[in-house]
Amino acid sequence: MSFDRSILRHTGVQLVLDLSDAPDTGGVDLAPALAAMAALEGGAVANVSEGRQVGHYWLRDPARAPSDAIAGRIRTVLDDIDRFDAGECDTVLLVGIGGSALGPEFAFDALASARPTRRLVVLDTVDPAGMAHILHPVDPSRTLAIVASKSGTTAETRTALRTVEAHWAESGACFADKAVAVTGIGSPLAALAAGWRATFPVWEWVGGRTSLTSAVGLLPLSLCGIDTTELLAGARTMDAWTRQVPADNPAAQLAAVWWVAGRGRGDRALVIQPYIDRYQGLSRYIQQLAMESLGKCTSRDGADVVQGLAVYGNKGSADQHALLQQLQDGRDDALVHFIATVGHPTTTPLQLEAADLQLSLLEGTRDALASVGRPSVTIQLADAGPRSLGALIALFERAVGLYAELADINAYDQPGVERGKRATAQHLAAHGAIADALDATPVTAAVLAQRVGMDPGRAWRILTQLSATHRASVITGERPSEDRFSSVG
Amino acid sequence: MSFDRSILRHTGVQLVLDLSDAPDTGGVDLAPALAAMAALEGGAVANVSEGRQVGHYWLRDPARAPSDAIAGRIRTVLDDIDRFDAGECDTVLLVGIGGSALGPEFAFDALASARPTRRLVVLDTVDPAGMAHILHPVDPSRTLAIVASKSGTTAETRTALRTVEAHWAESGACFADKAVAVTGIGSPLAALAAGWRATFPVWEWVGGRTSLTSAVGLLPLSLCGIDTTELLAGARTMDAWTRQVPADNPAAQLAAVWWVAGRGRGDRALVIQPYIDRYQGLSRYIQQLAMESLGKCTSRDGADVVQGLAVYGNKGSADQHALLQQLQDGRDDALVHFIATVGHPTTTPLQLEAADLQLSLLEGTRDALASVGRPSVTIQLADAGPRSLGALIALFERAVGLYAELADINAYDQPGVERGKRATAQHLAAHGAIADALDATPVTAAVLAQRVGMDPGRAWRILTQLSATHRASVITGERPSEDRFSSVG
Repeated sequence: MSFDRSILRHTGVQLVLDLSDAPDTGGVDLAPALAAMAALEGGAVANVSEGRQVGHYWLRDPARAPSDAIAGRIRTVLDDIDRFDAGECDTVLLVGIGGSALGPEFAFDALASARPTRRLVVLDTVDPAGMAHILHPVDPSRTLAIVASKSGTTAETRTALRTVEAHWAESGACFADKAVAVTGIGSPLAALAAGWRATFPVWEWVGGRTSLTSAVGLLPLSLCGIDTTELLAGARTMDAWTRQVPADNPAAQLAAVWWVAGRGRGDRALVIQPYIDRYQGLSRYIQQLAMESLGKCTSRDGADVVQGLAVYGNKGSADQHALLQQLQDGRDDALVHFIATVGHPTTTPLQLEAADLQLSLLEGTRDALASVGRPSVTIQLADAGPRSLGALIALFERAVGLYAELADINAYDQPGVERGKRATAQHLAAHGAIADALDATPVTAAVLAQRVGMDPGRAWRILTQLSATHRASVITGERPSEDRFSSVG
Repeated sequence: MSFDRSILRHTGVQLVLDLSDAPDTGGVDLAPALAAMAALEGGAVANVSEGRQVGHYWLRDPARAPSDAIAGRIRTVLDDIDRFDAGECDTVLLVGIGGSALGPEFAFDALASARPTRRLVVLDTVDPAGMAHILHPVDPSRTLAIVASKSGTTAETRTALRTVEAHWAESGACFADKAVAVTGIGSPLAALAAGWRATFPVWEWVGGRTSLTSAVGLLPLSLCGIDTTELLAGARTMDAWTRQVPADNPAAQLAAVWWVAGRGRGDRALVIQPYIDRYQGLSRYIQQLAMESLGKCTSRDGADVVQGLAVYGNKGSADQHALLQQLQDGRDDALVHFIATVGHPTTTPLQLEAADLQLSLLEGTRDALASVGRPSVTIQLADAGPRSLGALIALFERAVGLYAELADINAYDQPGVERGKRATAQHLAAHGAIADALDATPVTAAVLAQRVGMDPGRAWRILTQLSATHRASVITGERPSEDRFSSVG
């Protein structure tokens, strides 16, 4: 009896994938998925709905880009990041949302030294109180602001940018001197940033959720003292490993485990449990990577499908006291991913004892799940450094891509998000219309709703917010439908 | 047509529950659940498996405690917290895990002022690198340490405590002068803390996951300048509201929505989406509250059941770019909870514009889900202050309790966690046994596993960690089963 078959490791890669407690994937034909991935890496228009190539793998190994021109541009940006002079600053403020923020935030939290060259502050909200709280300790005279938006039109980022500019203006500092844009070539943000300190490009063939190894991630991370060369090297070695034949390919095996465990329809959530304290943000990062890529209702040839993999998690030892009860005794709908380091930088006897307890917490939980027939996956990292993190991210990126091939969906578009952006714009217009419809006579939400042609419940919600922010007067009734609203007197 | 039926509000409570987009709950008989909750509040032994009362509701309204003695003890602790002299310190270090950490951590993140009286640092891990990173900026001379463990025997907290003591020792500071225990009366931790600055009790009738309004939450929060009187008042007003008849009772209605939406078996995950930036930790808190309470395999009379509600989430506007794609287009297995404030403390024109965008993002997402027939719940808070937060927590606490009544399970025990603790202890022993079994002759994991009677895969994992931490030598083979391990020479 050997445990070899289910443990995948590879010379030069600091990550071991242990599938001993995962379901058998023998029945899954992975060859077409790997062929499609090879075509994608070769420059095929894999994002068919948007008519785009998908090139995040080239970022780690420019020689693999489909043209010398692309390879040259990737190398130039790497050089530009290396040579960039951030001036005097001890803080990097990253203004961005979703794919422009989650990767850098996670990697900084995971990798920054206890006394980082510069600290990273992420502004990824338009909540006014939240923005004020984040900006309060930010001193413009000692801060470089990076504004990241591939399209350069993201409403949240534009509003956040104006808030940041106002923060600079209050202190009398010049924003342009301290501002850098990371955006698509020719985007409205690029135009706005013409007088800024610098602009770095995001290529149209890089999606937000796979942009960690583009300027979106590399610029803020390198400014904060993180060894991005090692991060790229880790991703590159994993990319090489995950091009191998299915039996030796950890991304293919992981995708197949997800497929079998969830019966090809996502019946099991991926629970991401790093027993590495500083990886707490990992589940949030993978949540975006997997759910935005795989939560789709249309196959590539237009057929109706229902796909998706829910992702959640927290951090290992704390979850011993939170998730474990349900994952062990309750609904059987999860596939836990245990992630741990085996090496630890410093090793006093007390630290070794703590490391042994941490490993035993993981092993105890893994065993408890196995004893009731619940599957899990274990990923062992050599250490918690940038090379291991790069390998881990690249593993999940490719596993998500291969899973999409098995499901025959486009992992690289996000039609729902685009619809959400349009719905938001419509609601913003409706908000203005209701505010304009108010006059001195107090009337119910239903009356105002009728004036502008809107659902009364929605009108009531907008009016409640307008009155709470002193832009409408309200006479509260017995019931919401009896609340009467008027303009402010 | 009225929208009243589905919007619940109540005089004096700063929270509105909007179920307009949630399924109809008319068929759910909530009367028995409310009767059971009344018995629980009256002092019944509701935690049957552990033979304990369940009294977190008394903490907010001691007059409701089942005896004058209990009421008096609750009031005494409130007074003691008020009068406690923390000495000179600008940092509170909370050492605890699970229920002893998640609540205070979330509430501090949500409520602390931008320049808090004292900042809160939470140590809830035994990962040696994580502990070192957390403790690095902690200056013992200016820090009060609170060690929270109800049982006083939690292995993680004991190990973390020793690490904290070592940190104090390194700086030459006296730990006992700066240390406070929050623990069960007569626990081993209480004995250990005999010479410490103070000890506060956690009653046996308070579970970790509902301990925010006990000394576990109130002590660190009040030391950090948070108005815990308001927090308690918010919880108390919600408690009063949620004792009402089902039709007017937001906790009963919420529990019924969960029940109907998930067909009584948790088929929909609760996705917690606060459009309040500083509530990012809320989903993690509710994850523990719901999953540890409801993830059970046995009904109260011993029948086999499969129960549980998965909980995940992040924060609203960022998720527009992450979860929404799947929740809208992918698997239909979620019940989104939108949580927002309508009031905002400061209101420059730019801040109002941001607030309107934030509301429109919420409304757009809510609408997008409704347009494809996917349910959601919206919770509107008057503001993001301590009273609203207290009401919100109390709403979820009682909804979880009532859901457990519908499912006929004990929401207040955690047998899986207890089994996990035993499994961890066994693994720790196995770890030691493998280390002791090493000698100068390199042998495979299988050989060592046989020596101590263990699964070879598990032995290999332990040996890999021992070699990575320089406590074993390894000659790496072609495959893991061919790796050969020996003692360090």
